[in-house]
Amino acid sequence: MEKLVLLRHGQSVWNLENRFTGWTDVDLSAEGIQQAAHAGELLKKNGYTFDIGFTSVLKRAIKTMHTTLEAMDLLWIPVQKSWRLNERFYGALQGLNKEEVAAQYGEEQVLKWRRSPQEHPPAIDPNDSRFPGHDIRYQHLTHRELPLTENLSETLTRVMPFWTEHIMASIRKQQKVIVCAHGNSLRSLVQYIDHLSDEEVTQLDIPTGVPLVYELDDNFNRIRHYYLE
Amino acid sequence: MEKLVLLRHGQSVWNLENRFTGWTDVDLSAEGIQQAAHAGELLKKNGYTFDIGFTSVLKRAIKTMHTTLEAMDLLWIPVQKSWRLNERFYGALQGLNKEEVAAQYGEEQVLKWRRSPQEHPPAIDPNDSRFPGHDIRYQHLTHRELPLTENLSETLTRVMPFWTEHIMASIRKQQKVIVCAHGNSLRSLVQYIDHLSDEEVTQLDIPTGVPLVYELDDNFNRIRHYYLE
Repeated sequence: MEKLVLLRHGQSVWNLENRFTGWTDVDLSAEGIQQAAHAGELLKKNGYTFDIGFTSVLKRAIKTMHTTLEAMDLLWIPVQKSWRLNERFYGALQGLNKEEVAAQYGEEQVLKWRRSPQEHPPAIDPNDSRFPGHDIRYQHLTHRELPLTENLSETLTRVMPFWTEHIMASIRKQQKVIVCAHGNSLRSLVQYIDHLSDEEVTQLDIPTGVPLVYELDDNFNRIRHYYLE
Repeated sequence: MEKLVLLRHGQSVWNLENRFTGWTDVDLSAEGIQQAAHAGELLKKNGYTFDIGFTSVLKRAIKTMHTTLEAMDLLWIPVQKSWRLNERFYGALQGLNKEEVAAQYGEEQVLKWRRSPQEHPPAIDPNDSRFPGHDIRYQHLTHRELPLTENLSETLTRVMPFWTEHIMASIRKQQKVIVCAHGNSLRSLVQYIDHLSDEEVTQLDIPTGVPLVYELDDNFNRIRHYYLE
């Protein structure tokens, strides 16, 4: 039996401002930092340790990772960052206030965009400054890999290579792994691990800053899972 | 011409307490954090950017790296940590107050231990809790690699494989590199790059938290170097 710890980043300043974030690189709030430190203390108190950490290239996840590891006195372990663990790309909705969008498109549509695994937010124009092709950290991606919009299934599609090549590969080597990522990149991963239907994943919401522990068998099937609180 | 930036970690709590530190994993002081943030702002203001960072497995260097990169909005670049960039291992002196050691052994001997490249501090007993063989982060090292004491030449000897395989290799790939390390691991590297005699390196002291820029030719010979202040 192997344990895997998934951790959604702490509260960000845009969680506070109720805006669609996606790949926008917003910072943690002061409370977000505290949540990350608390997660680290909790993991340490419960005897957890890690050999390697995986996170996205977005600072709210990276700083959550650093803060959590520092609280565990594990800053020295290797941490690998990948765009594949980024939040779902929210297309033209990125940066917009969720209430304003709801006023324009209706609550029901917004809820679909946020939760329904097959629903696409409106695509972004590649000339829009928010298109990731303009950001140096994504310059190595092919045009096909750069998203204009993503539904949850597409998020899973780009997370999967990283899951297989890095996360699963590390667990196979008996390494203890922590993944610090985002509400939707983690939801997509959980949908895969737990064989959730689209119906079931629609109901799933992972809280910020609370370690989610997966106990996995040799076939990477879930034995059990629980939040550490 | 390629640029390489070397950065000694900011002030640590043991720099303040005037104790021999070596591989002891002490934290940055509040001033040390500020120095690192200032270094990052300075680098950014002067148009520097980096593709990859290298640091030790000691938190004062790791946190200097993270704080500097955050100030440059570069937290997303890969950062690789290695014990080979650790501070010189100070043997049985680690943790002792420098003045107390001077009172016992004389000022001259302490200065030799600190600066003279061929001088060994007293070796540590492998049963001593300060011996790195007891620390999980060094469990993959061979017995031969685990130091009992180190002079500056021996520090260079274990830094060199990392310089060649990672730092030089990255620079050859046209990557812009920052190295956050320690007073003596950086001195040993500078002795190598600049072909300094033992006499010359004895005089060399690298200040904490000040970026040291090396401009190198294709043969990794120094064209010029300067501090960014």
